[in-house]
Amino acid sequence: MKLKVGIVGASGYVGGELLRILLFHPQVEVTCVTSKRYVGDYVHHVHSNLRGITDLKFIDHNSEEIADKCDLIFFSLPHGSSVKMIPDYVDKGKKIIDLSADFRLKDREDYPKWYGYEHPFQDLLKKFVYGVPELHREEIKNSSLIACPGCMAVASILPLAPLIKSNLIEKDRIVVDVKIGSSGAGAAPSPATHHAIRFGVIRPYKPVGHRHTAEIEQELDRLSGGNVKIAMSAHAVNIVRGILATCHTFTLNHLTIRDLWKIYRGFYQGEPFIRLVRDMKGLYKLPDPKVVIGSNYCDIGFETDEHIDRVVVFSAIDNLMKGAAGTAVQNMNIMLGLDEKTGLQSPGLHPV
Amino acid sequence: MKLKVGIVGASGYVGGELLRILLFHPQVEVTCVTSKRYVGDYVHHVHSNLRGITDLKFIDHNSEEIADKCDLIFFSLPHGSSVKMIPDYVDKGKKIIDLSADFRLKDREDYPKWYGYEHPFQDLLKKFVYGVPELHREEIKNSSLIACPGCMAVASILPLAPLIKSNLIEKDRIVVDVKIGSSGAGAAPSPATHHAIRFGVIRPYKPVGHRHTAEIEQELDRLSGGNVKIAMSAHAVNIVRGILATCHTFTLNHLTIRDLWKIYRGFYQGEPFIRLVRDMKGLYKLPDPKVVIGSNYCDIGFETDEHIDRVVVFSAIDNLMKGAAGTAVQNMNIMLGLDEKTGLQSPGLHPV
Amino acid sequence: MKLKVGIVGASGYVGGELLRILLFHPQVEVTCVTSKRYVGDYVHHVHSNLRGITDLKFIDHNSEEIADKCDLIFFSLPHGSSVKMIPDYVDKGKKIIDLSADFRLKDREDYPKWYGYEHPFQDLLKKFVYGVPELHREEIKNSSLIACPGCMAVASILPLAPLIKSNLIEKDRIVVDVKIGSSGAGAAPSPATHHAIRFGVIRPYKPVGHRHTAEIEQELDRLSGGNVKIAMSAHAVNIVRGILATCHTFTLNHLTIRDLWKIYRGFYQGEPFIRLVRDMKGLYKLPDPKVVIGSNYCDIGFETDEHIDRVVVFSAIDNLMKGAAGTAVQNMNIMLGLDEKTGLQSPGLHPV
Amino acid sequence: MKLKVGIVGASGYVGGELLRILLFHPQVEVTCVTSKRYVGDYVHHVHSNLRGITDLKFIDHNSEEIADKCDLIFFSLPHGSSVKMIPDYVDKGKKIIDLSADFRLKDREDYPKWYGYEHPFQDLLKKFVYGVPELHREEIKNSSLIACPGCMAVASILPLAPLIKSNLIEKDRIVVDVKIGSSGAGAAPSPATHHAIRFGVIRPYKPVGHRHTAEIEQELDRLSGGNVKIAMSAHAVNIVRGILATCHTFTLNHLTIRDLWKIYRGFYQGEPFIRLVRDMKGLYKLPDPKVVIGSNYCDIGFETDEHIDRVVVFSAIDNLMKGAAGTAVQNMNIMLGLDEKTGLQSPGLHPV
Repeated sequence: MKLKVGIVGASGYVGGELLRILLFHPQVEVTCVTSKRYVGDYVHHVHSNLRGITDLKFIDHNSEEIADKCDLIFFSLPHGSSVKMIPDYVDKGKKIIDLSADFRLKDREDYPKWYGYEHPFQDLLKKFVYGVPELHREEIKNSSLIACPGCMAVASILPLAPLIKSNLIEKDRIVVDVKIGSSGAGAAPSPATHHAIRFGVIRPYKPVGHRHTAEIEQELDRLSGGNVKIAMSAHAVNIVRGILATCHTFTLNHLTIRDLWKIYRGFYQGEPFIRLVRDMKGLYKLPDPKVVIGSNYCDIGFETDEHIDRVVVFSAIDNLMKGAAGTAVQNMNIMLGLDEKTGLQSPGLHPV
Repeated sequence: MKLKVGIVGASGYVGGELLRILLFHPQVEVTCVTSKRYVGDYVHHVHSNLRGITDLKFIDHNSEEIADKCDLIFFSLPHGSSVKMIPDYVDKGKKIIDLSADFRLKDREDYPKWYGYEHPFQDLLKKFVYGVPELHREEIKNSSLIACPGCMAVASILPLAPLIKSNLIEKDRIVVDVKIGSSGAGAAPSPATHHAIRFGVIRPYKPVGHRHTAEIEQELDRLSGGNVKIAMSAHAVNIVRGILATCHTFTLNHLTIRDLWKIYRGFYQGEPFIRLVRDMKGLYKLPDPKVVIGSNYCDIGFETDEHIDRVVVFSAIDNLMKGAAGTAVQNMNIMLGLDEKTGLQSPGLHPV
Repeated sequence: MKLKVGIVGASGYVGGELLRILLFHPQVEVTCVTSKRYVGDYVHHVHSNLRGITDLKFIDHNSEEIADKCDLIFFSLPHGSSVKMIPDYVDKGKKIIDLSADFRLKDREDYPKWYGYEHPFQDLLKKFVYGVPELHREEIKNSSLIACPGCMAVASILPLAPLIKSNLIEKDRIVVDVKIGSSGAGAAPSPATHHAIRFGVIRPYKPVGHRHTAEIEQELDRLSGGNVKIAMSAHAVNIVRGILATCHTFTLNHLTIRDLWKIYRGFYQGEPFIRLVRDMKGLYKLPDPKVVIGSNYCDIGFETDEHIDRVVVFSAIDNLMKGAAGTAVQNMNIMLGLDEKTGLQSPGLHPV
Repeated sequence: MKLKVGIVGASGYVGGELLRILLFHPQVEVTCVTSKRYVGDYVHHVHSNLRGITDLKFIDHNSEEIADKCDLIFFSLPHGSSVKMIPDYVDKGKKIIDLSADFRLKDREDYPKWYGYEHPFQDLLKKFVYGVPELHREEIKNSSLIACPGCMAVASILPLAPLIKSNLIEKDRIVVDVKIGSSGAGAAPSPATHHAIRFGVIRPYKPVGHRHTAEIEQELDRLSGGNVKIAMSAHAVNIVRGILATCHTFTLNHLTIRDLWKIYRGFYQGEPFIRLVRDMKGLYKLPDPKVVIGSNYCDIGFETDEHIDRVVVFSAIDNLMKGAAGTAVQNMNIMLGLDEKTGLQSPGLHPV
């Protein structure tokens, strides 16, 4: 029997991507999808790629009805909204996968600083597992409450984790220079995302102070014993999907490419969605989001700098997949004891 | 037991797309892929999206070996190459799906005119079925020799067929204005496809005389009793995948939108990969390749012009899917008696 | 002494383009620019390319002040707004160049049909000159009231005028298939112009009934004695600037390329902003908006179809330049008796 | 009387851009342009934007003829070619502006390391002035031999110079993360620059070891007394023109935004092509290449990071203008004692 799942906040790009995956997932059935704005509309009027695939309509959020119809609920809402809704579903014993930031940070004191609101539920924060399977697989298996990572966060944590854990770099001088496509800004139009304005930019839209810094440091501190400092700058570039994170790190000792292969292979051996990319031939010698579009892969590659004691690590993801919906479903699969790759096996489209 | 399939000419974009589909197709096994240029290379060095998915390597073409290892062979070669190789495989009793133009036209006299070479095999031309399932499903079922349509051809035939069959438009005044992405030009670099030159164009690259005109007229003549004349002009636009065909037709009698719904619904009822798109709400009220990227759908929509006796019909496809690899696999499924949708169910990515 | 000019409605893309030209025009001085929304703001906060070039600020519209400060006023307002403001300036004897549709059509009865409002000023409609210099240069010289053509209109009229005038094509079967960039939709954001949605489309946004049909037919009727019927369909493509109009015409008699050269050269001889493009070598053998971006050129090319009695004519313009601001300044130069090219000599950027 | 200038190597993108500027420059006349490949062709067959603007044809390189016809010669050749040709012209007393790297570095020992060849002319290296007007204006005035900076170099040197000179940052921990459009790769097609492959990438094409590091360090060392270390990584993004350099620097003492304004204003006061961009309103609050396309501006902006002792400085240029042809002409103007802005006043196109 299929598990009944719902999506609260299903009209955005991440909601659409969850539907694209879950409607073909052999072990779940999507029973309800909510949207305040599109109540009563067919899903395919909003997610036009799903025309002919589902007859689902958006409903308004109603926790009684949703709890009744769903065993597991994905929440894809703006920050600050999940925190109001989720406790009720926790009480009802539902499995929860939240894609907002509301349950990512372990210390409620971080919320006023990074998100501008007081978090009322320190207990719940502790119960939620930070949903990066590569770091928390066992906890995810045993939990029913998952906080999925931010797209920038997963793109930064995965390339840095092996280096940080190995204690081989200066922990307080990590530059993460991120480039992202326009889907990362969500579905709401604005003057800054108007095609004539947004097309062709290389826009430093968050030069300092990106919120995902908090969760990146939280996770890397955990691996290294603390004191990690991330210097992040985020840029918008002229694509729709994709993130490339360029992580500039300064090494404590000289590292060779061979050392790096050993560290990364050791750390990620057997991981179904991590690919190490550092090739001598072909057109994609290092990670590039172009070849992961539509897939759940995180491609990771690295280079050493002979000129300065630097290791540069790159990661490429599809921000809507490994950066959101794909990781969410990967977490679900682990929670449910399914093959982790179920529903997530499509490789990227190429060329696209 | 799985059917063993091979791909001759597997290093191009269509070859890559065939692999993307077939490597996940539950009823086939890809046993060999050829490429003159990349002999000995891993497939993922050329099709980087397939990294981690297959350990296949390209081999050189060798008809003994391929016939030995394969029950069914896809040929994805430049025009004029298939015609030299395929007769040998026909003699060996193999199932063949050719993606070139070499067996599309029924009359060998058309080859010198449209393709510049003499076709030596009139008999074979008659045996090959033109692989548009929506028009030739029964023949495909009973054939082992399929000539897949050109990408521009399928994008033009599908929207025009219902109108032509209904005998409602001027058959000798059909304007087909096509717009296509850069993947349609293939994988070989050239000054005209250099990014700095090709980016941002609206380039009328084939204002008259497009070769696919021949097969479009052949098929529409068959439906209408002859004398169809297509006035086609092809334009390159700033995307990688996708075709929009705008078919301007002049009506013999006044037609209403209601008439058109009836005609198109009647013609395409039950077709798994045709979607009729003419909506009053949403962001995609008419077909747009953007929402079919990665899928095998052909979206068709229409409009009547009160100002002049015109019906405009639009079709949108992914040129590498419904325009090539997707249709090829759809043909294979029909030939093998499988569910026609096997391996082809992914909806388009959106947004992308 | 420099002529004092103002721009009413200067915060849009056409306003910005007028400023880009006029601030460097040696014979005019921009004395005031209005914007309801940006009153008090520096121009460069809206038109960021003009940072460091002007200290102008937007003012609110005030006809006393503007009439006082300006000899000539450009109006770049939404349709239906100019008609309310302009009569007052006419009474004050100002030179007026209107970029809206409000004074383009000669017959007020056309306004309810095409623009949905009653036009109160039949007299004024007659006094305004339709500002296509290639067709109305002498009238422009002697007028102080100019209605600039729509961008789609100028892109359609210029390639068709020589053919129509020569009486060589079927006048009631002219298909104009237009492709345009996103700047044509103006500066106001909307869900349909959101980058993630608008990027990568080939969107048939106006399949029939485009308003510019009215002015195109008006002008071509004038050249041919009437009964011209334009079958226009407009598509949005993935660029910011540029229009390509593909005009499919059916010939009354057989026409050769040589005939066409003669017709077009004869018609456009000496025109400073018309270039005929039909080359045997190079990367731009036919018109492509890519090479006119930023310039006031209209590139025109043609091809004959041996397969069907068709001549295809292409025109490429920058919609903000020859399609709007460039033509407006060209009109101004003619009105003022200046060299027509003043301020408009920049060639396109290439590559861009 | 106009100065006679020539361009050796005029068929590339920089050559085209030089022509676009110089053909409208009031004080020079372009007397000859060379191209090995296009000898005898009209310039507009290669630079299609210049159609109708010049009747120049490409000639083969012939130092006698060129020396005869030109007072000043621009060299726009691949690295390693200028060094062979230029000494001859120096002997003939010509004014020379070289756009290659062949005379940028002061120490011939750097050539084998960074460019892979032995440089035979240490004397000439000393005579050439490194052509960044903002740093070397007086020397340029008095020189007739100019080595123009690399595009990445000028984009890095200009934002960093004020900080380095002020001695406020860690000199050996400067991360320069650069993003560039496809025109930077030149006009020769290749598999990596094929539109279907190059479109949509965020490609780390030079993760370490970029050659421009040498000249950046040379110039910043000069300002700071030495020991500058640049950690540069270069990325290709989905535009044609433009560079954004993101310079991550770690501060020695706490710096405020006010401090930075003071430093940058002091350093760049009166510079005609430097704009400081750090706005509270508008759509371009920090530098973005989108608003400088076609112009000679270098926009510079900055931000302080409260979380880590970091200052991020951004610079945006058009790589073909301020990054090559624009700077070359600016140098020429200074050499000739002309107004530095002559021929370079066009602002960027916006939107584009």
